[in-house]
Amino acid sequence: MKPLRIGLIGYGFMGRTHSNAFTQVKNFFDLEYQPVLKAICARDAGKAKAFATKWGYESIETDWKKLIARDDIDVIDIAAPNNVHAEISIAAAKAGKMILCEKPLGFNGPEAEKMVAAVQKAKVPNMVWYNYRRVPAVTLAKQLIDEGRLGKIFHYRAKFLQDWTINADLPQGGAGLWRLDAKVAGSGVTGDLLAHCIDTAMWLNGSIDTVTAMTETFIKERKHTLTGKVQKVTIDDASAFLARFSNGSLATFESTRYARGHKALYTFEINGENGSLFWDLHDLHRLQVFDYKDESKVRGWKSVHITDGDHPYMKNWWVPGLQIGYAETFVHQVADFIQGLSSGKMASPTFKDGLATDYVTDAVLKSAKTMKWEKVKKVK
Amino acid sequence: MKPLRIGLIGYGFMGRTHSNAFTQVKNFFDLEYQPVLKAICARDAGKAKAFATKWGYESIETDWKKLIARDDIDVIDIAAPNNVHAEISIAAAKAGKMILCEKPLGFNGPEAEKMVAAVQKAKVPNMVWYNYRRVPAVTLAKQLIDEGRLGKIFHYRAKFLQDWTINADLPQGGAGLWRLDAKVAGSGVTGDLLAHCIDTAMWLNGSIDTVTAMTETFIKERKHTLTGKVQKVTIDDASAFLARFSNGSLATFESTRYARGHKALYTFEINGENGSLFWDLHDLHRLQVFDYKDESKVRGWKSVHITDGDHPYMKNWWVPGLQIGYAETFVHQVADFIQGLSSGKMASPTFKDGLATDYVTDAVLKSAKTMKWEKVKKVK
Amino acid sequence: MKPLRIGLIGYGFMGRTHSNAFTQVKNFFDLEYQPVLKAICARDAGKAKAFATKWGYESIETDWKKLIARDDIDVIDIAAPNNVHAEISIAAAKAGKMILCEKPLGFNGPEAEKMVAAVQKAKVPNMVWYNYRRVPAVTLAKQLIDEGRLGKIFHYRAKFLQDWTINADLPQGGAGLWRLDAKVAGSGVTGDLLAHCIDTAMWLNGSIDTVTAMTETFIKERKHTLTGKVQKVTIDDASAFLARFSNGSLATFESTRYARGHKALYTFEINGENGSLFWDLHDLHRLQVFDYKDESKVRGWKSVHITDGDHPYMKNWWVPGLQIGYAETFVHQVADFIQGLSSGKMASPTFKDGLATDYVTDAVLKSAKTMKWEKVKKVK
Amino acid sequence: MKPLRIGLIGYGFMGRTHSNAFTQVKNFFDLEYQPVLKAICARDAGKAKAFATKWGYESIETDWKKLIARDDIDVIDIAAPNNVHAEISIAAAKAGKMILCEKPLGFNGPEAEKMVAAVQKAKVPNMVWYNYRRVPAVTLAKQLIDEGRLGKIFHYRAKFLQDWTINADLPQGGAGLWRLDAKVAGSGVTGDLLAHCIDTAMWLNGSIDTVTAMTETFIKERKHTLTGKVQKVTIDDASAFLARFSNGSLATFESTRYARGHKALYTFEINGENGSLFWDLHDLHRLQVFDYKDESKVRGWKSVHITDGDHPYMKNWWVPGLQIGYAETFVHQVADFIQGLSSGKMASPTFKDGLATDYVTDAVLKSAKTMKWEKVKKVK
Repeated sequence: MKPLRIGLIGYGFMGRTHSNAFTQVKNFFDLEYQPVLKAICARDAGKAKAFATKWGYESIETDWKKLIARDDIDVIDIAAPNNVHAEISIAAAKAGKMILCEKPLGFNGPEAEKMVAAVQKAKVPNMVWYNYRRVPAVTLAKQLIDEGRLGKIFHYRAKFLQDWTINADLPQGGAGLWRLDAKVAGSGVTGDLLAHCIDTAMWLNGSIDTVTAMTETFIKERKHTLTGKVQKVTIDDASAFLARFSNGSLATFESTRYARGHKALYTFEINGENGSLFWDLHDLHRLQVFDYKDESKVRGWKSVHITDGDHPYMKNWWVPGLQIGYAETFVHQVADFIQGLSSGKMASPTFKDGLATDYVTDAVLKSAKTMKWEKVKKVK
Repeated sequence: MKPLRIGLIGYGFMGRTHSNAFTQVKNFFDLEYQPVLKAICARDAGKAKAFATKWGYESIETDWKKLIARDDIDVIDIAAPNNVHAEISIAAAKAGKMILCEKPLGFNGPEAEKMVAAVQKAKVPNMVWYNYRRVPAVTLAKQLIDEGRLGKIFHYRAKFLQDWTINADLPQGGAGLWRLDAKVAGSGVTGDLLAHCIDTAMWLNGSIDTVTAMTETFIKERKHTLTGKVQKVTIDDASAFLARFSNGSLATFESTRYARGHKALYTFEINGENGSLFWDLHDLHRLQVFDYKDESKVRGWKSVHITDGDHPYMKNWWVPGLQIGYAETFVHQVADFIQGLSSGKMASPTFKDGLATDYVTDAVLKSAKTMKWEKVKKVK
Repeated sequence: MKPLRIGLIGYGFMGRTHSNAFTQVKNFFDLEYQPVLKAICARDAGKAKAFATKWGYESIETDWKKLIARDDIDVIDIAAPNNVHAEISIAAAKAGKMILCEKPLGFNGPEAEKMVAAVQKAKVPNMVWYNYRRVPAVTLAKQLIDEGRLGKIFHYRAKFLQDWTINADLPQGGAGLWRLDAKVAGSGVTGDLLAHCIDTAMWLNGSIDTVTAMTETFIKERKHTLTGKVQKVTIDDASAFLARFSNGSLATFESTRYARGHKALYTFEINGENGSLFWDLHDLHRLQVFDYKDESKVRGWKSVHITDGDHPYMKNWWVPGLQIGYAETFVHQVADFIQGLSSGKMASPTFKDGLATDYVTDAVLKSAKTMKWEKVKKVK
Repeated sequence: MKPLRIGLIGYGFMGRTHSNAFTQVKNFFDLEYQPVLKAICARDAGKAKAFATKWGYESIETDWKKLIARDDIDVIDIAAPNNVHAEISIAAAKAGKMILCEKPLGFNGPEAEKMVAAVQKAKVPNMVWYNYRRVPAVTLAKQLIDEGRLGKIFHYRAKFLQDWTINADLPQGGAGLWRLDAKVAGSGVTGDLLAHCIDTAMWLNGSIDTVTAMTETFIKERKHTLTGKVQKVTIDDASAFLARFSNGSLATFESTRYARGHKALYTFEINGENGSLFWDLHDLHRLQVFDYKDESKVRGWKSVHITDGDHPYMKNWWVPGLQIGYAETFVHQVADFIQGLSSGKMASPTFKDGLATDYVTDAVLKSAKTMKWEKVKKVK
């Protein structure tokens, strides 16, 4: 196995999921390259050090520019907040590094366009961490749809419901809470949660043409962790839109952090003339399948427990009936990225795919302001 | 018990649900009045006769005007297609009859306004058959919300999914298929299915201010049963909208007859700061309840089996664990109507409530054409 | 339609379910005979009168012997406690009446043998009210098994879990509580709940050869409603057994009134080499179906919503997606009984079938005492 | 962190789960000791080598005696078939090694007694890999029961259903199939599956006094992989028993590899006077909780999604809503074992606990032969 030397930027939640993926992938997949945890970069040297010790990174950096300048790094993995994705990506591309970037790709479409231009010019492998494509049940959904089993598609619906910001005492900004600060996050649930729904949706059902949206900020002011002052909340707490796909199907999308009782309920459903599929992140190891060709009197939704050897990725794990969890989706993504390096066919979602999603979130945020249907820009 | 003499117009699906309710109500509820099946009216005398024999109606009529003219009828029950609701209702009101009318109330808002005016002028008891309010689980939801248990409401979402018109060979128009003919039905799923969702939503969560909608007719032409010719389909096959309620909550609504795998999947969910509720017509005897006040580590959605004596209506039926079905919702509605006669406090939904729903469906259909947000007219 | 004149004995829970069935059957099924509610018999004339008024019985009796003696009664329907089933049945048979008897058939096997002998000698139509056979999902299970779809059967498991007697303050004996008095009920959950499980099991999977059982009375003493004194509890609160069916399959059975959280959770599952079925009374309108012949990667348990026209009995009710409840199972049983009269092929379960179940419960109760495997007597 | 030097015996399914646990534990738990993958031992040097490369073991051995003799090994981890557990454990204990042993502990009770004696004499830390105790939902169940929330326990029921040996063409014996050979496995599903059920049951509900059991071998002969000949199948394909716990509760247990449709459906339920719990391995990240103290009209089974920071082990993983899988249960067990080393309070299940389970399986197998209730031997 050849080494694939990783330089990670960020030590938060995503820094952990990526590090775990780099660690586990070699034990479960047979690949040409093996990730080597070369360096972790964070502004706070102490935190970088602690993270390096925990995960076995060989070294630390406190300046991402130095990380990019290092010769012994093959891959720059960006697990930092959204407002720095573009600058780092563009610099990393110029330095000829492969890039793995957390989602959403850019702060918005125009910024993401520059990121795409940079990686295309530099011809470096690139990928966005829309990890839910690699939930085995979701990957199976993709296969079934691509095989044409559903027939003509009529409907798509997705939602991503959380409830962790209902408490008005929750502050905004700062470590772990930057997702509530639009200056750092770009938007609220639109870029954080809906972006996942949109990425999966376009992967499964093709491009989106037009949208009409509404957003809301339920709690208007929150104390800011960094300033210590009560400030206007700048993000959207909830975001919903109607859409029309290029294939003629209709869709509803919704995301919120004010749906009491739901921790991370990302669900999607797709209805075609011959069948339907439903998936739910809270039981990610199941796919609900309806096949109209089944005999009428015993026809029903099948709850498929995605733990068999003929299910995507699952022959690499345990035995039928024994489920995997959230973390393994990142392992799959690393495995596919590496297989893409070997095969020369870059694994998706690439930066270009990430840009397409940014175009949709841009249209959603615009429509919420104009209160009109907006066209979605298409990636060239 | 005093007699409440019923004159039914229509012998289809709804004619049967109403007749069963009139028959069963006295066996399960203690009431001042007892429905007496006086007459069934239908244009086809043979069919009227057969229905009368089956259900025990004492007589038949073939002209609804004659039915209304009869002295021995207290209640005119309209289970005929949508395009005749107004004319019959207005005439019945003039004749001083109590009126039970199938939903939606009118062909559209302006027509429904005349119906409201007629019953108000005549001061006759009136009710619209939005039967889902009387599913015990839905009634319990209403109680819990009215008790303030959910706190401030953030979200409402409802959908009504069916799949019975996907087959392109299904004709439009004629007996049983008039729902596919806009001249008879008024609209497609908007008036048929969404109207149910809207009635329940406004009952539970108050009035709707604005909507933005989209509709679609997937199959553009179908053979017409009456003409024998292939004609343009005039109804909407699918209808979805975003809405803002007067209480500040956001909503998504969707209905379709092209959601493969769903027979009559009417679901709603409401999220408040302190709790959430979810209900599903396919398991109508359950209510899913989330209470944030439950102790954190054992907090979860409760699947409440609505079959206990302290659940709405249920002490009148069997014992805990033994479920009732769809038909009983009509029995409950008749029981409540009769109790309203006794108490002088008319049971809802009245014609005025039905008008409010027509205003929403009008706005939805308009928005789908204008592609703009539309204000919903308010009932005075 | 010809009249089928009913004389009902008992006005409790079962008196109501039967009366409702006699009332509804003609509205939903096309039959040669139509039940006529001729007389209700109860020792307390006031209660009999009230019940007659409520349900429309034409007359009352306070002595069942007089009821049996009447010329204008075709069917004696026994909805009285278990300890009088035999005496009434035998007398009714001698009087040439058709007999519908609540379950369990006799107080025990030897008593039930006399009942079978009586109806056989008199050649009168007879049936036992094991109503769960007529849940459409259960009837469909029977069809699927009889069609050989499951292949060789390996396992059967059934349980009937309730929790309504956990409270130690609940008295025994008297109206509604006679089920806690072995002198009236014969046994506790064995005859009350397990008997249902056994009847269904033998209908679906054939006869039971041997059993080993345990029973328990958790609360040893309760106040007796009739005597006012604290007395020893004589019934079994819980009863479980292992069994071997004649077809070589293995089974577990359990029933209890001490399973906190379950109101009337009657479930069964059957596993064959090619498929499996699962059913649950708490969602009686669903059948869970597993078919090993389904394509491997989309294979799963199908949740079949038993509300379509091609499901047993369902074309007589509403439209797809709209469920029926518990009460309708009795309607189906009356319909089948009447069809049996017309066809000359008596509907099951007959008294002979009821005797077979009594033999199993006898063996269970005996095994619980001997602590040995016991053979089950076979009906000749 | 101090090193904890591991010597693993076996490279099969369990060899992988243990190795993954040793690898992941340091990244997710803060512990005094850190496992170091020192050596993997297998008779086949090539396979040992490949496994070592995959997982990063520093060296290999082909003779377990040599492994035990090494100075640089602290822990002997036995992931070899059941028939060698005793010999290796006893030798390892004599050599002063800590021992982690796959379940079931011994080939039978008498053999396991010697293993317990050996570790007690040598005073070496020891543990049996009954990993399901460390599913967070199961651990939470233990906490809730220990806090007395359920009150007096009435019932326990557990089953472990699989379907992977239904095919008569499946051979017995040899790699991966030694579980079908009683000479290697000791018994069939009794030791393989029921042992898990019993270990959890006694952990949650205390000791078992008496049992009555039945076992069955559905397919009597299979080709043997090693001999190439069709030979008698010596294991039990299915095993069920009734039991009485010391606390007065009643139980049913069942396991089989002939339950079509179930891959690894291990479920348990426990019913107490005040509440009940249900868990299911197919959705291992959920615990179903029923609390009778909840308000009556909204009382129901709560589906608790065990992914919050206040759920056992979960603060070490991701964020609410994101589930873990099967593999993490082994990580937890290693973490607890290490914490036991630090605290001096050995983590359960120890060899003594494993012996208690062997006593139950011995009684089950005996009862299946004697067809009598058998007493379970108690660990002194």
